[in-house]
Amino acid sequence: MLPVDLPDTVRDALLAPLVDHHCHGVRRDDLARAQFELLISGGGSPAPPGTTHFDTPFGASLRRWCAPLLDLEPHTPPAVYLARRAELGAAEVNRRLLAGAGVVAFLVDTAPSDTASPNTAPSNNVPSNNVPSNTAPSDAADEPALLSAAEMGRHGGAAADELVRIEQIERDVAASAQLAVDYLDDLGEELTVRAARAVGLKTVMARLCGLDLEPTRPSRGSVIAAANRRLDEPGEPPTDPILLRHLLWCAIDVARERGLPLQFHSGFGGAGAGRADPAGLSELIKTLQPIGVPVILLHCYPYHRQAAHLAGLYPNVYVDVGLAVPHTAGASAVVVDELLTLAPFHKQLFSSGCQGVAEAAYLGALSYRRALGTALAARLGAGEWSATDAARVAHMIGAGNARRIYRL
Amino acid sequence: MLPVDLPDTVRDALLAPLVDHHCHGVRRDDLARAQFELLISGGGSPAPPGTTHFDTPFGASLRRWCAPLLDLEPHTPPAVYLARRAELGAAEVNRRLLAGAGVVAFLVDTAPSDTASPNTAPSNNVPSNNVPSNTAPSDAADEPALLSAAEMGRHGGAAADELVRIEQIERDVAASAQLAVDYLDDLGEELTVRAARAVGLKTVMARLCGLDLEPTRPSRGSVIAAANRRLDEPGEPPTDPILLRHLLWCAIDVARERGLPLQFHSGFGGAGAGRADPAGLSELIKTLQPIGVPVILLHCYPYHRQAAHLAGLYPNVYVDVGLAVPHTAGASAVVVDELLTLAPFHKQLFSSGCQGVAEAAYLGALSYRRALGTALAARLGAGEWSATDAARVAHMIGAGNARRIYRL
Amino acid sequence: MLPVDLPDTVRDALLAPLVDHHCHGVRRDDLARAQFELLISGGGSPAPPGTTHFDTPFGASLRRWCAPLLDLEPHTPPAVYLARRAELGAAEVNRRLLAGAGVVAFLVDTAPSDTASPNTAPSNNVPSNNVPSNTAPSDAADEPALLSAAEMGRHGGAAADELVRIEQIERDVAASAQLAVDYLDDLGEELTVRAARAVGLKTVMARLCGLDLEPTRPSRGSVIAAANRRLDEPGEPPTDPILLRHLLWCAIDVARERGLPLQFHSGFGGAGAGRADPAGLSELIKTLQPIGVPVILLHCYPYHRQAAHLAGLYPNVYVDVGLAVPHTAGASAVVVDELLTLAPFHKQLFSSGCQGVAEAAYLGALSYRRALGTALAARLGAGEWSATDAARVAHMIGAGNARRIYRL
Repeated sequence: MLPVDLPDTVRDALLAPLVDHHCHGVRRDDLARAQFELLISGGGSPAPPGTTHFDTPFGASLRRWCAPLLDLEPHTPPAVYLARRAELGAAEVNRRLLAGAGVVAFLVDTAPSDTASPNTAPSNNVPSNNVPSNTAPSDAADEPALLSAAEMGRHGGAAADELVRIEQIERDVAASAQLAVDYLDDLGEELTVRAARAVGLKTVMARLCGLDLEPTRPSRGSVIAAANRRLDEPGEPPTDPILLRHLLWCAIDVARERGLPLQFHSGFGGAGAGRADPAGLSELIKTLQPIGVPVILLHCYPYHRQAAHLAGLYPNVYVDVGLAVPHTAGASAVVVDELLTLAPFHKQLFSSGCQGVAEAAYLGALSYRRALGTALAARLGAGEWSATDAARVAHMIGAGNARRIYRL
Repeated sequence: MLPVDLPDTVRDALLAPLVDHHCHGVRRDDLARAQFELLISGGGSPAPPGTTHFDTPFGASLRRWCAPLLDLEPHTPPAVYLARRAELGAAEVNRRLLAGAGVVAFLVDTAPSDTASPNTAPSNNVPSNNVPSNTAPSDAADEPALLSAAEMGRHGGAAADELVRIEQIERDVAASAQLAVDYLDDLGEELTVRAARAVGLKTVMARLCGLDLEPTRPSRGSVIAAANRRLDEPGEPPTDPILLRHLLWCAIDVARERGLPLQFHSGFGGAGAGRADPAGLSELIKTLQPIGVPVILLHCYPYHRQAAHLAGLYPNVYVDVGLAVPHTAGASAVVVDELLTLAPFHKQLFSSGCQGVAEAAYLGALSYRRALGTALAARLGAGEWSATDAARVAHMIGAGNARRIYRL
Repeated sequence: MLPVDLPDTVRDALLAPLVDHHCHGVRRDDLARAQFELLISGGGSPAPPGTTHFDTPFGASLRRWCAPLLDLEPHTPPAVYLARRAELGAAEVNRRLLAGAGVVAFLVDTAPSDTASPNTAPSNNVPSNNVPSNTAPSDAADEPALLSAAEMGRHGGAAADELVRIEQIERDVAASAQLAVDYLDDLGEELTVRAARAVGLKTVMARLCGLDLEPTRPSRGSVIAAANRRLDEPGEPPTDPILLRHLLWCAIDVARERGLPLQFHSGFGGAGAGRADPAGLSELIKTLQPIGVPVILLHCYPYHRQAAHLAGLYPNVYVDVGLAVPHTAGASAVVVDELLTLAPFHKQLFSSGCQGVAEAAYLGALSYRRALGTALAARLGAGEWSATDAARVAHMIGAGNARRIYRL
């Protein structure tokens, strides 16, 4: 699996258990092909007629590397793979893949997946014929479609902690509050309560309004006006930039009080594309620097070089390439190398960004190990790094940095 | 020409005839060195004193790979190359290079080249001392300077179809209409007529106003006001964003009715540089998704990673690296690999983007085959893909996807 | 040091003396670890608790390649390196590293370093506990902390010339002028006087207000109003976009009169991140094209592909990857290759961008030679280029282009 010419210490460091510092729960139920295809796509829409989402780097990688864990030959056809997956059942498949990832701790964004897909974001309450219905509010479902954080840990033989998706808190509050003042009070309280049992906060603002937002706290008057508008359509994800800025600053207050990092989804999967460039966060990052809240940039591709640049410029910025690793699959070595090219080693993190299917958790960890192994082998081969440094950096990125930042 | 370690099936797939789904006609006349240099440059301006456009990746590649087709040694000096080119004559050179490309069908943007160069775009009617005068309106020239679609096909031993450049239609209409209402009527009619014999529409909005335009249909009142202003200077390319949005939506209507794809020039060669980033199209793409009009992103470099990301996110987006392939020449393997890194395989297309000189058509095809061969060899060597899949993907990108999308 | 399989002519060309067309003076005094760490960081802030700026690509490269010049083993620990550095003394270390760079001429931005760091830029007059105090106005210090241009040359066994940082001129003028009209007159005069003994002008507008500024000359009325505001806080770096545009156009006038190039810091280290993308300069570049002022884009990473694209589009644009080379260190081959992938060979330049410590000058030159060697070896190995061309291009980028543009 790893490059053959690595010293043993480096190999051991690469194979050491990882902290997956950002993932989502995977589906607990058996999936029809149409459902499975949606979950392995980047955008959450069906492939055009006559095509399949298996014809993607992720699909090819899945057939290559996950098939053997299901007792199949590498490069097995999609239909065979899915038949075997159904035969084993979702629970067994999840166990094999999550345990196979070699992860020691999962940090899990436990929001239901409805706000996760760029194509379904603005109108997630309108059921689509093609999209599997996992969009029910979490408090309404008897058995949620996704594994909880604790279940992710149990299936994967790992510890598990929670990340609070702040936009989900907002939706819960918007659904129950009657008056704008209640909404505002509840938001702060609920964030505080939820943060008390979490290791970090997370925002998907990149998808809802872009990252290039005004980096200041909005006025109370403008927030109350926005909250009144908001209470008219509480079931939708929030999209008002004023309300989102208010939410963000509430989260910053809580993060500062509790010493929690704040994760920003950026790049990959962000619907507004260009507006998901983390460079748009520069002014906010500078504002947060004296406040001491770590900003963690997730996924970042295709803006990961900008993210690596930010991580070098600002002491409070951390970075991963998350879900871009399993999605760039066999070519993720380039992506991981580009992060290692500029970002300080103490600022880089591993995550799978896994969502919906356990294949992403397994492929995230596998591709990351292969990619970092390739990048380190190149540096060792050129005489640029010592083996001691290479092993140390592998430990830092794979687990050490996450332990320090999240105080695990 | 191809990597030595490819399986025969993959090699055969790479050498199979290509569909060049976007190119321009090449010059039919013999070219002086100054003219030739302008046509092989990226920007259409002469090189600074004491320098030459042969000192570019494209120039080096041309001397390496085109020289043998003209019976010269590889790496032949520019003067020798051009002397031999003159000796053979443009017709023979065009035949050798176009036939050498191994293309089964050319889809040709038949607009005269005057709107094609970023440096000449805003004032193309003012003759420059340095720029060869191929800017005459197409209806005025007895024998157009560029080969027609049919001639491109004949010279290249291939089929040929037309792409309608919508801004050219607009110019023709602006030149003949007297009143704003006529202009609006004529625009719709002319687009419909021209689209009837075309396989796709194309816009160069990236060059004229940027791709980050408002994604909605402008009001009729604002369009009529803009049309009145427009009729005062009909010879210029259109630059008014309202008029261009109107034109775009007329084209979208026609594309939807006739089931035609809409090509967007993006990135490479776009004068407004940053504004040519296809990520700026995100909102429009989302708007067009339910309408069902395929959006095809051309060239894209240096924003091809963003383009690949869009192709993965949205079911109606397709992508190529077109003219960036011959222009990045020996290093195009990286560019092609970066597309293959994220874009679904059923969303990628081949084009040469060839313009002005047949060298670009030949080098586009040659560099593409070498680049894809290198990318596939890497995936096969790492055990990531099977040879069967590699051959299948090569067929899809080289011709199959274009046949499906353009219904060839 | 270079790839083993290079022909002798190419190897000789790579080892030939370089023109470092953009650097800063290095510190003349012995540096404590905290000071040294700040100077090798990208952003000028201390590393987070428990981490070190040695854990960066630059830090790893420094330990690998600079240690032997200080008679130490490669990969020596930071503490050992710094102890040996102190033992030898700053003067001897500067001599070894600057001479080791193999540079024939340094072009030196002689502004004091206070405006150079993104994190200290807006409030550089407020002393920080962590930042070494080299922020004294240059006219007030008995012995400036940084080597002068002449001293850089003397230590490095090279010629040396000056670059005028236009924002520094502005600060000097703002500090002495009493009235807005004096300020405006003095600005023009001082620029003219300082330009008379310089080989180029330089702006750090990317850091102060972003590169996407309005490309036109501001009205005299608006400038006078801005100047009046400015005179209230003359010690700060200028940040008013109107004033900066005025300053820029004054510089353009001087550059045109004296035939000097105008360097734009872009990308790397620019605080506003996204706003430091050189693509934002497109409109200004088009405006300057007929005026004939060469625009030189410095650093550029992570926007170097956009910069290479601009260099191909516009005859007046030149490009380097400057400080990004030592900072991407062992992986700089990719960065240099990406420039060589698209930028005309007569438009590319070498610089170290060195600032504060002589290690950057040495590593800039060393990494550049290794990187270009790797890029050329790949092209030769693939049969894309001839050895003659490779050697010629190495000479052009390493020194020839700079000699032509700066008339050295």
